[in-house]
Amino acid sequence: MNAEEFLDTINKKENHTAVEDMQNVMNIISNVKQQGDAALKSYTKDFDRVDIENFKVPEKILDDSLNSLSGEERQALAHITGRIKEYQESIKYSDIDNDEFKYVYRPLEKVGIYIPGGTALYPSSVLMTVVPALIAGVKEIHVVTPTFNTNNMTFGALRILGVDNVYTVGGAQAVAALAYGTETIPKVDKIVGPGNKFVALAKKLVFGDVGIDMIAGPSEILLYVDDTADPAHIAYDIFAQAEHDVNARTFLLSESTDTIDRVDKEIERLIESLDRKEIVKESLQNNHYKIADTRERLIKIINEISPEHVSIQHQDSAEIISDIHYAGAVFEGTYSPEAAGDYAAGPSHVLPTDGTGRFSHGLNVNDFLTSHAVINLKKETFDEIAEDAKLLAAKEGLSAHYESLNIRTE
Amino acid sequence: MNAEEFLDTINKKENHTAVEDMQNVMNIISNVKQQGDAALKSYTKDFDRVDIENFKVPEKILDDSLNSLSGEERQALAHITGRIKEYQESIKYSDIDNDEFKYVYRPLEKVGIYIPGGTALYPSSVLMTVVPALIAGVKEIHVVTPTFNTNNMTFGALRILGVDNVYTVGGAQAVAALAYGTETIPKVDKIVGPGNKFVALAKKLVFGDVGIDMIAGPSEILLYVDDTADPAHIAYDIFAQAEHDVNARTFLLSESTDTIDRVDKEIERLIESLDRKEIVKESLQNNHYKIADTRERLIKIINEISPEHVSIQHQDSAEIISDIHYAGAVFEGTYSPEAAGDYAAGPSHVLPTDGTGRFSHGLNVNDFLTSHAVINLKKETFDEIAEDAKLLAAKEGLSAHYESLNIRTE
Repeated sequence: MNAEEFLDTINKKENHTAVEDMQNVMNIISNVKQQGDAALKSYTKDFDRVDIENFKVPEKILDDSLNSLSGEERQALAHITGRIKEYQESIKYSDIDNDEFKYVYRPLEKVGIYIPGGTALYPSSVLMTVVPALIAGVKEIHVVTPTFNTNNMTFGALRILGVDNVYTVGGAQAVAALAYGTETIPKVDKIVGPGNKFVALAKKLVFGDVGIDMIAGPSEILLYVDDTADPAHIAYDIFAQAEHDVNARTFLLSESTDTIDRVDKEIERLIESLDRKEIVKESLQNNHYKIADTRERLIKIINEISPEHVSIQHQDSAEIISDIHYAGAVFEGTYSPEAAGDYAAGPSHVLPTDGTGRFSHGLNVNDFLTSHAVINLKKETFDEIAEDAKLLAAKEGLSAHYESLNIRTE
Repeated sequence: MNAEEFLDTINKKENHTAVEDMQNVMNIISNVKQQGDAALKSYTKDFDRVDIENFKVPEKILDDSLNSLSGEERQALAHITGRIKEYQESIKYSDIDNDEFKYVYRPLEKVGIYIPGGTALYPSSVLMTVVPALIAGVKEIHVVTPTFNTNNMTFGALRILGVDNVYTVGGAQAVAALAYGTETIPKVDKIVGPGNKFVALAKKLVFGDVGIDMIAGPSEILLYVDDTADPAHIAYDIFAQAEHDVNARTFLLSESTDTIDRVDKEIERLIESLDRKEIVKESLQNNHYKIADTRERLIKIINEISPEHVSIQHQDSAEIISDIHYAGAVFEGTYSPEAAGDYAAGPSHVLPTDGTGRFSHGLNVNDFLTSHAVINLKKETFDEIAEDAKLLAAKEGLSAHYESLNIRTE
């Protein structure tokens, strides 16, 4: 399809949150608020089919998990941790001191991090969320994860990073516990990290009572390619997104239909060899878009839908990227496949989806800081602004504001 | 009271959003989504008692409003605008370029700004929200305000700043219109600005579909003083907060009960002379707290409740401020009364309230930017990380991720 047809199609596919889901999540939050740990136990039994006596993972289990890692695994985690640290330090904000105005950044005190679990392990999500918090200087990190095996790489990674407060609880109930506190889990200031749609809904509902990073939907990639890209590379980049989830979205853009056809042939040739081919097939069936049009119109698409991942494998990549305003993250060239970003490049893989990159950004060290201005006016400056400020105060009918200024000019 | 008694008292006063209010706001949003302008007209008639044919303010009205301003008023607006610009430019983020990683900031495309109205005018809120958006480089600014008089300073200030898109609609319905669009008002990317509790609830409910700045509650100030502060100054600073609203909160902290008593006497002496004395009296009756304790415990209070405004008028102000981690904004010394910050100092007066400064910050130029990383790895770097990334991909059971990396190492 061309750019216009694509924008028509995508604008018609509106995401509607089922009212029933919203109501269920509201009930879960309300029950956790009122009954604390007892509600957590009951939901964990119902949803995860696990009987939990104590949600807090004992130190011994964290140690055992660490000890069960191979030397190669430990080294990989340490190496990637180092890369993430270096990147996050390079973008961390510093205090500003402009004489009468300071602007200061302070680490958050208590942060809750959601790490997905269930049947799979996501040690990469541990690194991509905990390391930025550590670089920010967060004092207390509390991790919730529906991970019920005793020896596992998620716990091992947490132990390596020095996180002691780990709780085996997931879903909306875990978000509610972090937002309002229970007997076991303390109330935190901000909750971050990826999760399923119930986690996302719960984050939306507790927002304002605590900070949250973003409300994430299914993952997505947009690939913008020409013939300098190897079609087999592109096929695997598409598969890597599609294997996450049948709802994952993949967009293949090119100025040439021939290029798209060549990728199509590789998809066809390689798809049967995939471990998760059923998920990939269903995902491609429902949520794969191929768009050929002029460069100008293709860039317009990128800025309009602001995809979570944008991969530009094109000889004019620098030029194209300079026109991209909105994206979760941009990956340039053959050697920056999105999978490298997922695991090891440096920036966090927790990124805004479904157009929300138009107003929000991927998780980073600065999301674990809060900031404020310190205003210290000299008498001369105060005298210079007092009359104007008094004029506005009078106009707004706030006479005590007026007097609070006026008494200092006497 | 002392610090401990205060923290007990304040922790017991929990804010509960009435379920009924939430339900009403959900209905308003849903009706605006479905019926657009027709719903706006109906709500404006019901809530504001105004019949509106066309929500968009004609250019002539904006011009007339500007022309109705006195020379002094124009000059005051221009002067303050200049100060806000200078401050916001000094804290604006710049792109980072670290070879394989760029981090880039882009202005938001479409922003909605809520300016309170009703019976009063708030030209100061126009400056404190629109100027940061302009410095960021926002392309389209759409202002909603329940301001129905034709010639007024709010419109005049908007005209001076070059804002053409002004709509006379307020409340939750205005937020819904900006979030989802109507025939007259376009959907925006982010909604900012102060408003009443229905505006705050609507912002919470549309969050995620659009960005929002914060969910603000009643205004509050914490004053930390010693005998170097003039008790009459402090009394007026307290009045200036209390005159906003019977729910406005004022906290007076000192290491000495004598100091607090001296301020009390001034409050008593001056309160009857205030224009808005009924509001001030009710506010002080219900929401004024006097706390005397050690410096350590007083600073603990500040960090725990993170007040919107913190005013330190104390001979050791620098030392005290260095221990303050969480606040909306900090005002230091005699010549930085909070009222100066409201109107003219430079930083925006749109600030987090009710403890939310522990995880969020006052509105500034950077809230009108979004950002993303651009990752461009060299082949050597890719080769250096590929094995570790493949190991994690395999561990997480994502074989297409593994292949997307592996095919590039061949």
